[in-house]
Amino acid sequence: MASSNNDHDQVKAAGLFERLWGKIVKFGLMLKKLGQDDPRRTVHSLKVALALTLVSMLFYFEPLYEGLGLAAMWAILTVVVVFEFSVGATIGRGLNRMMSTVVASALGIGAHRLATLTGNQGEPILIALFVFVEAGIVTFFRFIPQMKARYDYGLLIFNVTFCLVSVSGYRDKEVIQMGFERVCTITIGGCIAVAVCVFIRPVWIGVELHNRISTNMEKLANFLEEFGDEYFKVSENEQTREKSSFLEGYKSVLTSKGSENTMANLARWEPGHGNFRFRHPWEQYLKVGTLTRQCAFKIEALNNYLTSETQTPQEVKSIIQGPSVVISSECGKALKELATSVKKMTKSSSNEPHIAKSKDAAEELKAVIRSSLCKHPADSLHIIQEGAVASLLLEIITCIEKIADAAHKLASQAHFKDVKPTVKPDQENSVNDGPHHVITIEG
Amino acid sequence: MASSNNDHDQVKAAGLFERLWGKIVKFGLMLKKLGQDDPRRTVHSLKVALALTLVSMLFYFEPLYEGLGLAAMWAILTVVVVFEFSVGATIGRGLNRMMSTVVASALGIGAHRLATLTGNQGEPILIALFVFVEAGIVTFFRFIPQMKARYDYGLLIFNVTFCLVSVSGYRDKEVIQMGFERVCTITIGGCIAVAVCVFIRPVWIGVELHNRISTNMEKLANFLEEFGDEYFKVSENEQTREKSSFLEGYKSVLTSKGSENTMANLARWEPGHGNFRFRHPWEQYLKVGTLTRQCAFKIEALNNYLTSETQTPQEVKSIIQGPSVVISSECGKALKELATSVKKMTKSSSNEPHIAKSKDAAEELKAVIRSSLCKHPADSLHIIQEGAVASLLLEIITCIEKIADAAHKLASQAHFKDVKPTVKPDQENSVNDGPHHVITIEG
Repeated sequence: MASSNNDHDQVKAAGLFERLWGKIVKFGLMLKKLGQDDPRRTVHSLKVALALTLVSMLFYFEPLYEGLGLAAMWAILTVVVVFEFSVGATIGRGLNRMMSTVVASALGIGAHRLATLTGNQGEPILIALFVFVEAGIVTFFRFIPQMKARYDYGLLIFNVTFCLVSVSGYRDKEVIQMGFERVCTITIGGCIAVAVCVFIRPVWIGVELHNRISTNMEKLANFLEEFGDEYFKVSENEQTREKSSFLEGYKSVLTSKGSENTMANLARWEPGHGNFRFRHPWEQYLKVGTLTRQCAFKIEALNNYLTSETQTPQEVKSIIQGPSVVISSECGKALKELATSVKKMTKSSSNEPHIAKSKDAAEELKAVIRSSLCKHPADSLHIIQEGAVASLLLEIITCIEKIADAAHKLASQAHFKDVKPTVKPDQENSVNDGPHHVITIEG
Repeated sequence: MASSNNDHDQVKAAGLFERLWGKIVKFGLMLKKLGQDDPRRTVHSLKVALALTLVSMLFYFEPLYEGLGLAAMWAILTVVVVFEFSVGATIGRGLNRMMSTVVASALGIGAHRLATLTGNQGEPILIALFVFVEAGIVTFFRFIPQMKARYDYGLLIFNVTFCLVSVSGYRDKEVIQMGFERVCTITIGGCIAVAVCVFIRPVWIGVELHNRISTNMEKLANFLEEFGDEYFKVSENEQTREKSSFLEGYKSVLTSKGSENTMANLARWEPGHGNFRFRHPWEQYLKVGTLTRQCAFKIEALNNYLTSETQTPQEVKSIIQGPSVVISSECGKALKELATSVKKMTKSSSNEPHIAKSKDAAEELKAVIRSSLCKHPADSLHIIQEGAVASLLLEIITCIEKIADAAHKLASQAHFKDVKPTVKPDQENSVNDGPHHVITIEG
């Protein structure tokens, strides 16, 4: 009986161990996937580890330890809280922290000196008052939208530093030394963080935004290029499933507003690099992004008809098929050309013939609607559905023209390169050699 | 000549002063508006000021100063960085900071002891190695989406604490004391911040999310209630402008995904309060929010026809006018009922008669399309546009049914109150006494 119990326990323990092991393996695979999806994550982790080891060693060895004292731990703290994934975020936090430490230290010393003038009795009351007023005002300033976007962290650190300096201890000399030490160590920490972030495989948030904007256009282009085939052709079961990833890609564009704004705010901190100058027109990227998103809303509406349960019979669909397929694919091609020229940072008008073709098809589509669609003997509801698809396609053309305008304005504001006219006007069609360009960004 | 110069300088200085004063006044007015728009901002600023003054005074008076030493400044730092606008965010950051400080201190002490065992030569190398490995792993963990959502700040503080404790100084005794002090002071700071945040006019992020979800529904309802009048009636210039704020309100719903997710993540930290239990079904709020957003995408498409340059002649519009106006306004009413019952936390089926009516009107609309719209002798393009409006309205009914389902599921999961059936079935229509309910939430 006891041995059977023992066996039972052993089996149970083995089962438990197996399940635990299974979880560990699963966790490990998840980590591996995270690293493979974006190898820069691994690089970033190693960079943080390096910066932290550097600053720790600086602190560890006695000369510095005696020189800067315990305040040196601010350097460690600074490296950890300042080091962000992108250069823009790191420089932004670093500058915020350094500048606000300098200003708040000075003010804190002033407040402390003012308070000591009143003698021992009034000192704590006056200091409490100063802290209360300063904290109230600075915290309220954090609600100002323009401040929040760029100086939120600076205001936070201002609060910390002012309190620490004005409250700490009794004698002026110590207070000034404390403020000075804090500024020094935070500068050391900030510089180490920024240096490691910038000089070892930097991730420029400006480049991220640049790529994001063009990738979003590409996602919409993918949808438009596939839409015609998908909507009008009788779908062969197997192929449909493969295509669906192209047709779903646009969905992330619908809700990308917040992250684009954040990226543009951070990009402003970055110095010039590669083809990006210091005052790169980030605002214009946001404008292109907004127009792209508006186009995505229309595509969302179009996508409804792909997944709709009430499918129109093929014979009704076939009335508008010809021009609709042309509009959809030409719009897709135009958008892809725009995306490519943004990504490559070139001025290009290779999208124009596609827009022109889609406009021709739009006229044809209108003619078809006038001449045949409404006169077809089919169920009116089906006719209306086809009409809705057609009218969305017409709107998408207008959208893409707006995107093209904004992209051209971006190209001139950001001084994109003029491309040599290696392609003659009558060969323009051959510019499109398929949807699978491999595009790389220099820098 | 000299006097004229002097006069000139004085005029210039006066102009400069005037402009500066103008800017200051403008800034002051902006601050005043910020405070008036949401008075909780002022309250929050005063709360932070109070908490910071409290912790400063604790630190200022000698007994504590000698007891906890310089480490007491961690308490000040903790109050500033932990104190957030909402209870959820404050508790989340506070717990993250406290828990990770405890664990990282223990690990840091272990690492330090292990390193000292190897003697003076090996110690710095081993410590550097520990710091490097720890920082690399913990930084990588911050990329795991589930970790990032709730424990990002904890992992950051883990990095700081492990480094500080393992690197700091030589003797074991000091290291243990340092870790202990850090845990104590951070706990004191965290508790002051959380206490002030919770006990003085707390802002519950869960309530915010709750209100946001129902306000978003209301915004869509406002659009739908106005749409019929706006689209079909000949607009009187003056009135149109007034209405437009109702018709634009839905736009903020289009891009609300990110903030809703953040709010739900923070709400999970909050203890039970008022009608909200600890494990309130926040996930279900997000589902209602997602469906509301999908409905907003359709409304965005509908809005295009309001602002479209090519307006259909009134005679074509009038074909679908009757049932379309009913659908739009009944959908609006249904959505408003849903919003109200979510806001008031009641189980209610008062939306159902409105949905039923809009479905009846939908059948009528389909019949009208079949019998008259396509046979009308007008320009087919105009017919198609009206068809598109009609088909969007039909889709919106489906959308609202889905929202109603999700809202009912929410009501049962969150144990909303059953309302006493004071209204008899045949009086149900009178439930709607206009769009301007004043609704308050208890707690």
